[in-house]
Amino acid sequence: MIPNLNLVPFVSVDHMMKLVLRIGVERFLSELAAYVEEDFRRWESFDKTPRVASHSADGVIELMPTSDGRIYGFKYVNGHPKNTREGRQTVTAFGVLSDVANGYPVLMSEMTILTALRTAATSAVAAKHLAPRDASCMAIIGNGAQAEFQALAFKALLGVDRLRLYDIDPAATQKCVRNLQDRGFEIAACRSTEEAVEGADIITTVTADKQYATILTDNMVGAGIHINAVGGDCPGKTELHRDILLRSDIFVEYTPQTRIEGEIQQLAADHPVTELWQVMTGAAPGRADARRITLFDSVGFATEDFSALRYVRDVLAGTGLYQDLDMLADPDEPRDLFGMILRAGREGSVSPG
Amino acid sequence: MIPNLNLVPFVSVDHMMKLVLRIGVERFLSELAAYVEEDFRRWESFDKTPRVASHSADGVIELMPTSDGRIYGFKYVNGHPKNTREGRQTVTAFGVLSDVANGYPVLMSEMTILTALRTAATSAVAAKHLAPRDASCMAIIGNGAQAEFQALAFKALLGVDRLRLYDIDPAATQKCVRNLQDRGFEIAACRSTEEAVEGADIITTVTADKQYATILTDNMVGAGIHINAVGGDCPGKTELHRDILLRSDIFVEYTPQTRIEGEIQQLAADHPVTELWQVMTGAAPGRADARRITLFDSVGFATEDFSALRYVRDVLAGTGLYQDLDMLADPDEPRDLFGMILRAGREGSVSPG
Repeated sequence: MIPNLNLVPFVSVDHMMKLVLRIGVERFLSELAAYVEEDFRRWESFDKTPRVASHSADGVIELMPTSDGRIYGFKYVNGHPKNTREGRQTVTAFGVLSDVANGYPVLMSEMTILTALRTAATSAVAAKHLAPRDASCMAIIGNGAQAEFQALAFKALLGVDRLRLYDIDPAATQKCVRNLQDRGFEIAACRSTEEAVEGADIITTVTADKQYATILTDNMVGAGIHINAVGGDCPGKTELHRDILLRSDIFVEYTPQTRIEGEIQQLAADHPVTELWQVMTGAAPGRADARRITLFDSVGFATEDFSALRYVRDVLAGTGLYQDLDMLADPDEPRDLFGMILRAGREGSVSPG
Repeated sequence: MIPNLNLVPFVSVDHMMKLVLRIGVERFLSELAAYVEEDFRRWESFDKTPRVASHSADGVIELMPTSDGRIYGFKYVNGHPKNTREGRQTVTAFGVLSDVANGYPVLMSEMTILTALRTAATSAVAAKHLAPRDASCMAIIGNGAQAEFQALAFKALLGVDRLRLYDIDPAATQKCVRNLQDRGFEIAACRSTEEAVEGADIITTVTADKQYATILTDNMVGAGIHINAVGGDCPGKTELHRDILLRSDIFVEYTPQTRIEGEIQQLAADHPVTELWQVMTGAAPGRADARRITLFDSVGFATEDFSALRYVRDVLAGTGLYQDLDMLADPDEPRDLFGMILRAGREGSVSPG
């Protein structure tokens, strides 16, 4: 008999925060990025099921499953732009990893924080392969919930130590400056996107709202820049002017999904793009020369959540930063589910009804 | 500020058992059946997304989402026939209900036990509309994990008080007899399917294994019988001889799914079937006369899980039979996810990394 077949470890929001703090944010992002890259490199071994979306007037609830044949994972994630009005997050998420051989869940985790981390780690992994050599200065347009994670991931993986921040709400920029102080950055709080992109090697766009649809116009982007476009991630939501796309070499996670959700929804369905895994494995070139504009059109893909859950599972042992959930019925005799209920009644104080 | 936005009530296996015992198994099944029927009656208001299956050599992992526009629900369920060899359940499940308006989960629950209950409740609801009047004797072929739940649901909803049990493994039958003693049944443990179906008004087939593909042959089924076919529920797995189907009026949950998974996978794709909700709403006839054979070709559908989660949510208040999971990040300022981590570091004993 295998002990405790009924228990599934659960990482709460509080435990996730403690795990990130104990490991250290930058180390967490670096190690997570290695898992993300490892899984991108074995791209063809994944079952890439399309995400399953349930749309409503106010938002969307999605299930994002994937499997490598040994481990299965899925993420539940919502997107409700009006949520912030009532003090809720626009996006919340949780995820599950399971053993493909027996279908039993082996980990459940909050994924609101973890998604922020994996998105930043994925951006930095992409930039490691695409950004100009010795990039050290990054503009971040949009200083909301994702901004600090992006900054720290680029510091950890590429050594970016100069930030130029801009948000239409100066309070967001100030929050970002405050949160990133004493972490080895030289930070400029800028008053416009034009000012923020001056001298930047990398431009990260990570705005939240649909209505500011052209964050970057063509004249703002000079030769040799890497654009990390994170905020355009659903149908109708884009951040870059189409002319920038036409001048860029475009890299995506999973083409069929990005055609629908990414910046390239502005382009013809056959506009050439390169999948990131192809660059990592050498199957396709990355940055051609120092003058090219590279664009990572990031929308987030199920394998990245899978990588993140896999990483959390691997670092969790011995930390105590989880609780065991009694989630799976585990009768002594698998065919005797009803008898298990009867025994619970006899053992407890509850009289069987 | 709405308090405790981060918390999601979770019903563990132990809490579910206690909830069932406190309410009483038969009352739980009756009340649950009312929810199932209520949702069948508003069938057309549901978003009936197909289930998302990830198949492997040893089994399948499925996500079954649905929504009525106000509430969203999904179930995670695996099916791994070889699991019992190592003391695991063939099927385990858990589920989530969410608020469509903001995407936040409002309930997470074990669903291994709950699925057994909802399957039995659905069978009994169907029989209430289809079985011959005054049916009081039911044969149950297959005496595994689902058998007792079926027996008690039919007792609660139809007044069935005579059982004729058969399983290829006599130990399964004995377990079933033992578990159902002192519950008002007259029980006959039979040595063959032929013996079990003698005098039965209703025949429930609920066997587990693919290899016994013809549990019922044509000669076993007389006029006026209602067949509740529960065990044939995936491609390649059926329990009834095709000739029985040809003599029966067939009722299904959701035709597109049952064509693939149910007994009717043995029939032509245009063989006439009636959806259960049509009978309930009067849109289609049920049992035509006392001589007809009616067949409920049950495979289980997402709305039934939705009904079950909805019922559990409604009866949970005040019981204390749940624990609050810290599952959703809830920063004071929605854009300040990173700051929430920093504050956790300052408040806890963990030094920020």
